[in-house]
Amino acid sequence: MIVTVTLNAALDVTYRLDRLRLGEANRIGSVRERAGGKGVNTARVLAALGQRTLVTGLVGGATGDQFRADLQHSGLPYLLTSIQGSSRRTVAVVSEDGAEPVTGLWEPGPQVTAGEWSRFTERDFPAALTGAAVVVLSGSLPPGVPADAYATLLRRAAALGVPGVLDADGEALRAGLAGRPALVKPNAEEAQRATGAADPAEAAARLCALGAAAAVVTAGPDGLSGHTAEGLSWHTPAPRRVLGNPTGAGDAATAALARALADRTPWPQATADAAALAAAAVAAPLAGDYDPALYHELTSHHEEIRPCR
Amino acid sequence: MIVTVTLNAALDVTYRLDRLRLGEANRIGSVRERAGGKGVNTARVLAALGQRTLVTGLVGGATGDQFRADLQHSGLPYLLTSIQGSSRRTVAVVSEDGAEPVTGLWEPGPQVTAGEWSRFTERDFPAALTGAAVVVLSGSLPPGVPADAYATLLRRAAALGVPGVLDADGEALRAGLAGRPALVKPNAEEAQRATGAADPAEAAARLCALGAAAAVVTAGPDGLSGHTAEGLSWHTPAPRRVLGNPTGAGDAATAALARALADRTPWPQATADAAALAAAAVAAPLAGDYDPALYHELTSHHEEIRPCR
Repeated sequence: MIVTVTLNAALDVTYRLDRLRLGEANRIGSVRERAGGKGVNTARVLAALGQRTLVTGLVGGATGDQFRADLQHSGLPYLLTSIQGSSRRTVAVVSEDGAEPVTGLWEPGPQVTAGEWSRFTERDFPAALTGAAVVVLSGSLPPGVPADAYATLLRRAAALGVPGVLDADGEALRAGLAGRPALVKPNAEEAQRATGAADPAEAAARLCALGAAAAVVTAGPDGLSGHTAEGLSWHTPAPRRVLGNPTGAGDAATAALARALADRTPWPQATADAAALAAAAVAAPLAGDYDPALYHELTSHHEEIRPCR
Repeated sequence: MIVTVTLNAALDVTYRLDRLRLGEANRIGSVRERAGGKGVNTARVLAALGQRTLVTGLVGGATGDQFRADLQHSGLPYLLTSIQGSSRRTVAVVSEDGAEPVTGLWEPGPQVTAGEWSRFTERDFPAALTGAAVVVLSGSLPPGVPADAYATLLRRAAALGVPGVLDADGEALRAGLAGRPALVKPNAEEAQRATGAADPAEAAARLCALGAAAAVVTAGPDGLSGHTAEGLSWHTPAPRRVLGNPTGAGDAATAALARALADRTPWPQATADAAALAAAAVAAPLAGDYDPALYHELTSHHEEIRPCR
């Protein structure tokens, strides 16, 4: 079983309309809602791949109730910690024909109390890890959760023998590295913010120097760069240019890498699988989904894996 | 007691941020939510004026639960009909300094079934009218509610001896006039769409010809134009230019006119009060609120009422 952690759970709301006009009243044609946040997207992909998953995190309020209801509806098992504050909504405004770029409205998320945070770390997180092969920690931290939250959770998981995958940004990523994740998987911009290195291969090496046992840095059409603390380094090109919605592609890559970690698949082979799954996720309109036919096509002939050293 | 009807109940969500950027992820600084829809705004203003009110309408889903919770929190009594669909959200994106015009995202509203509609008209609406002095019917109709909904409700109310105020747009307004409201109160654009007359005074006269016993057409800084089926016609200038949020100003005017109808205040005097309350509503940031000091100031010296005929 692969456990995903979504501390800043979100209700993803998608508004479809012809064109968003600033300063005017825009009447929305159709509304879609589902549970979101990077950990949920990763769990959806894993479930579609036939993996057992468990969604964990902090949820509250009416949006939290809708979040739970959607997980139930989606058949995604969960063990969630209730909080007083209301979980955030992430509103995406998309044009009917998909021609215009998505405008996002990201709510900040609820204030989490110290008591709620310790209920998660002391009670629910360890309980969720029973029988887990891998834990995935991804996304932003809601207000009130300490900046080193991911380091704390990684240490607890390691103590229980469960390796962790970290996919975060900013201070949550930087401070999380001290928890020595088995794998860290930021995108190139996030990796640069954390390490200062603009080159993905160099950034991956620095992430290992900062505490990760392995690092994979995704760079969209430029492919994925990997590095391990033992000094192995490799690059996987993106399989092909796919048009679509890149939101959620990174979460699909994380799903592939988490599965590989659970299965002890060698990293270069895992990264090729992650590249294919990410491309198939771009081809699907909603984050958390992927195009199974494209994924199958991209994995049926092996992609080139170029060794760096 | 004044009963307000909100068939397409809304959860008003206000997002405050520096500037809305199209095609980008906008991180929201603060989120506010409260029960909305024109009828609720009118009830809020009436309650603040010390009037007894009852909010009625159709609500459902998680947003419906939040709608009820906010009415409770606001101390607004309600008798709501539960529906299966989810009540809509109306998202307003406002700039931190209020300098940029508000961008609105209006969800369409839930599909209402014939059974739900008849539960409202046959059971809850007549029950709500017990002891009512006036009923206010305002706002859009959700999908599934017949276009002549307001005519039906006005006839039922008249049969129970309760005069009705109609504040609507488009087909809901046009078809509603057949129900012979005691007063119809559109703004100038809505009145023009219903009657073809660009001149508010002419539009008010035509609204009476189409079935209303009295009509008041609001034209923002151009004031209010009134007409009755008996042929009385008058104009009330806007008290002064007030900067602020015009959303909800019309609902405040409706509140003043509904109170006047309950109190049998002569229309020209009622319209002067409505003009002052609407101006005081523009000065308050949220729809449903008004600035009591400004309202007091504007009503303490009587505004000019210019007779037309």
